[in-house]
Amino acid sequence: MTGDPAHRYEQLAAIIARMVANGALRPGSRAPSLRRLCKDHRVSLSTALQAYQLLEDRGVLEARPRSGFYVAARSTSLLSIPGISRPPATPKRISISATVQTLLEYAADPRLVPLGCAVPSAALLAGGRLDRFLARAARLEGARYNVYTTPKGDLRLRQEIARRALRWGQGVSPEDIVVTCGCTEALLLALRAVARPGDVVAIESPTYFGLLHSLEALGLRALELPTDPVAGVDCGALERALKDKAIAACLFSSSFSNPLGGTAPDDKKRELLRLLAKHRIPLIEDDIYGDLHFGAERPKPFSAFDPAANTLYCSSFSKTLAPGYRIGWVTSARYVQTILEHKLAATLSGPALPQAALGEFLSRGGYDSHLRRLRRAFADSMDRALRVIEQGFPPGTRVSRPAGGFVLWVELPDEVDSRVLLEQALRRDICFTPGDVFSAARRYRHCLRLSCGHAWDERIAAGLRVVGELASELSGR
Amino acid sequence: MTGDPAHRYEQLAAIIARMVANGALRPGSRAPSLRRLCKDHRVSLSTALQAYQLLEDRGVLEARPRSGFYVAARSTSLLSIPGISRPPATPKRISISATVQTLLEYAADPRLVPLGCAVPSAALLAGGRLDRFLARAARLEGARYNVYTTPKGDLRLRQEIARRALRWGQGVSPEDIVVTCGCTEALLLALRAVARPGDVVAIESPTYFGLLHSLEALGLRALELPTDPVAGVDCGALERALKDKAIAACLFSSSFSNPLGGTAPDDKKRELLRLLAKHRIPLIEDDIYGDLHFGAERPKPFSAFDPAANTLYCSSFSKTLAPGYRIGWVTSARYVQTILEHKLAATLSGPALPQAALGEFLSRGGYDSHLRRLRRAFADSMDRALRVIEQGFPPGTRVSRPAGGFVLWVELPDEVDSRVLLEQALRRDICFTPGDVFSAARRYRHCLRLSCGHAWDERIAAGLRVVGELASELSGR
Repeated sequence: MTGDPAHRYEQLAAIIARMVANGALRPGSRAPSLRRLCKDHRVSLSTALQAYQLLEDRGVLEARPRSGFYVAARSTSLLSIPGISRPPATPKRISISATVQTLLEYAADPRLVPLGCAVPSAALLAGGRLDRFLARAARLEGARYNVYTTPKGDLRLRQEIARRALRWGQGVSPEDIVVTCGCTEALLLALRAVARPGDVVAIESPTYFGLLHSLEALGLRALELPTDPVAGVDCGALERALKDKAIAACLFSSSFSNPLGGTAPDDKKRELLRLLAKHRIPLIEDDIYGDLHFGAERPKPFSAFDPAANTLYCSSFSKTLAPGYRIGWVTSARYVQTILEHKLAATLSGPALPQAALGEFLSRGGYDSHLRRLRRAFADSMDRALRVIEQGFPPGTRVSRPAGGFVLWVELPDEVDSRVLLEQALRRDICFTPGDVFSAARRYRHCLRLSCGHAWDERIAAGLRVVGELASELSGR
Repeated sequence: MTGDPAHRYEQLAAIIARMVANGALRPGSRAPSLRRLCKDHRVSLSTALQAYQLLEDRGVLEARPRSGFYVAARSTSLLSIPGISRPPATPKRISISATVQTLLEYAADPRLVPLGCAVPSAALLAGGRLDRFLARAARLEGARYNVYTTPKGDLRLRQEIARRALRWGQGVSPEDIVVTCGCTEALLLALRAVARPGDVVAIESPTYFGLLHSLEALGLRALELPTDPVAGVDCGALERALKDKAIAACLFSSSFSNPLGGTAPDDKKRELLRLLAKHRIPLIEDDIYGDLHFGAERPKPFSAFDPAANTLYCSSFSKTLAPGYRIGWVTSARYVQTILEHKLAATLSGPALPQAALGEFLSRGGYDSHLRRLRRAFADSMDRALRVIEQGFPPGTRVSRPAGGFVLWVELPDEVDSRVLLEQALRRDICFTPGDVFSAARRYRHCLRLSCGHAWDERIAAGLRVVGELASELSGR
């Protein structure tokens, strides 16, 4: 909840969008009148109008001349949401490193339509203000910072991270935070702190391929759990796995999981934590998408509910501000010392000036209004991508409806091989991420992930339409 | 060899200093006349005078009124150089992480006289010009660089690194270089590429404690080899170890090892490489001090002689320019792919702007003249420290005479426990590094390492004198 009056209309739009999404407002029906809106939500006419115009831009409402606003006939339920995943129940060794490299190369290739890697466009990230803080720090305080940072990282940055965490109920001491080289190092250090080579780590399925790669590098085995694209990992399946198998740790997304987009509701998070506490299994949580919520409230991470302090929380600024700065963090009251020791052995410390600049940036304010703009852009891009998928993908296609982040998970008809589809798309200079890289067992060959991290434009729209056409040809439908 | 005429006098001084060091010029004897110097070395009178004044500043020569220059009565042989080390012949598991953290905390404490961690002072590093390139890049090209760098790191930076390496005969393709988070990550990635948990890695003894820490983090065992403070690791001992034991890899300093200061001469490097090639053992070399040679020529790293390409070369800019930037690299034609995969899983990529700034800095020139100034400062500091040790440390003290780098290895009389000494020194706000942290077997309790990485001043001189007094008390001599 931002509380910023300048953006009241966005909050209002989110409320209406949720009513459409949950069926309280049905496709084709008339939306509440502007006058009604003003009365019910105590907003001005101009705020109400702005909210409806935003929803019109995003295809949720349609303005009909002299008649007002209607819920768009296109219903979000035209396409089903994928069902809960059914991964194999045995832990797998992983072999994915070669693939990861190829995907990163695609991401760095400006000729390709950027539906592949989950890296937001630099234009949307608008890091200019942060860069100016870096320039200033380099110019004025270079000598002061030309040392190894304290092992845990720049103190002010850690204080700012702790201050933000407090807002969503996560009480963290700056002394329990270790600044890392992105979320990748954070996850790796967390894994090293709680698992030994050969151990089994329970993960969502599908899950982020970089995480699979880290498990591979550490010689860990992955147990993929059935996961719902709306509500996250399946509690029952986890409970059965905990009874059957020696699991060293769980590693779940806090919110808006990559690639499925699901978020466990608060109650389910509590239930998962109780289950893990009972079995004394540590939980590593990846909250890298948590700040990118489309709804009014930021979802709480697991560690906000953790009474037993058996969580290791990982995040970074790479999806929201500065992938080029490579600044993430890991925090855990229980494991901070072990994490720090592994950090010292792995990278010693991080670059000092970028950390100092980011600490200064956060302390000056302005990050929240940046996040609001960014969420709006991602929601818009995702919404428009959904429309193209509805219109141009083969019958039987299912697609996720994440309430945050910027990736979509598309389940194509079974007969479409997304690796073949990718080959054809690359020949047309279009990139996406094929489904099998999100699974240790290399499932999901008929699925793909689309990144909506760029501002929508005709090139992206055309590229996505081509993917739909190619998929339709392959499906024969 | 710089070839820079403005610094001819330094080359000349180095030649004379070497004649003193190897006994060609004996303490108390008259140095060649200025006139003779001009004739023999084809230099101007002012160059010859500058050279002698530099040597006078460093205590190598003494000017006697109306009589010319004499080799200082203080002979460098007043104190013996420590003998070759005799570590235990069995591989050891390591447990040093807690110590490393404490040492880093001392390093970050400005109240302490900085004889501890091997971090040069920011004043000597003179990173201002690099910082200005960073400020410029952040201001003008922030958006361009707000992406993940290509996995291997900034291309221009890799090109500049390759260009420099070529000067000392190390032919490296930029494609075989992976930019890392300092030499720490470089060494860790190299170790991961060639060794598995439980494997034995042969190392110098004593060796850098950070390296022991990395071995510990990877679950590797260390086999410490007898090492000479002048000529580096003992070939015979290595040969015997290779026959007796399953060794996965060797990890040696290229030059000016930390803490002993030794450098294997070229012929010995070739011999070691032949030995390793015969047994097909990869060599990881740490060349972080290679640019800090006091003599005219930069020593060649092992990989400059490596016909079988079975070396993994690691270095960084942390000792010569920018510890705060955390930029190192690892290069190996044979292992680059494996290294890259581990890098992706560990940290994904490094921060983009600092790499871009460093690439720009190197391409513009000026680094070499900076290195010349730096070497002179380190040589000066080390020389002055040697004089204090000669004058104020207990009888029986031995000390290394490195021809580069900026650390001294001091062997105190057996009865002095350097841990007790450190406790007493810390109470007087003086820091050094106790000897036992340089050994997996925790030997060298009567030794210590001194960093000479700061410009010499009265505070440092007084601090070192106090260490000598405390050591004398403890030794009872």
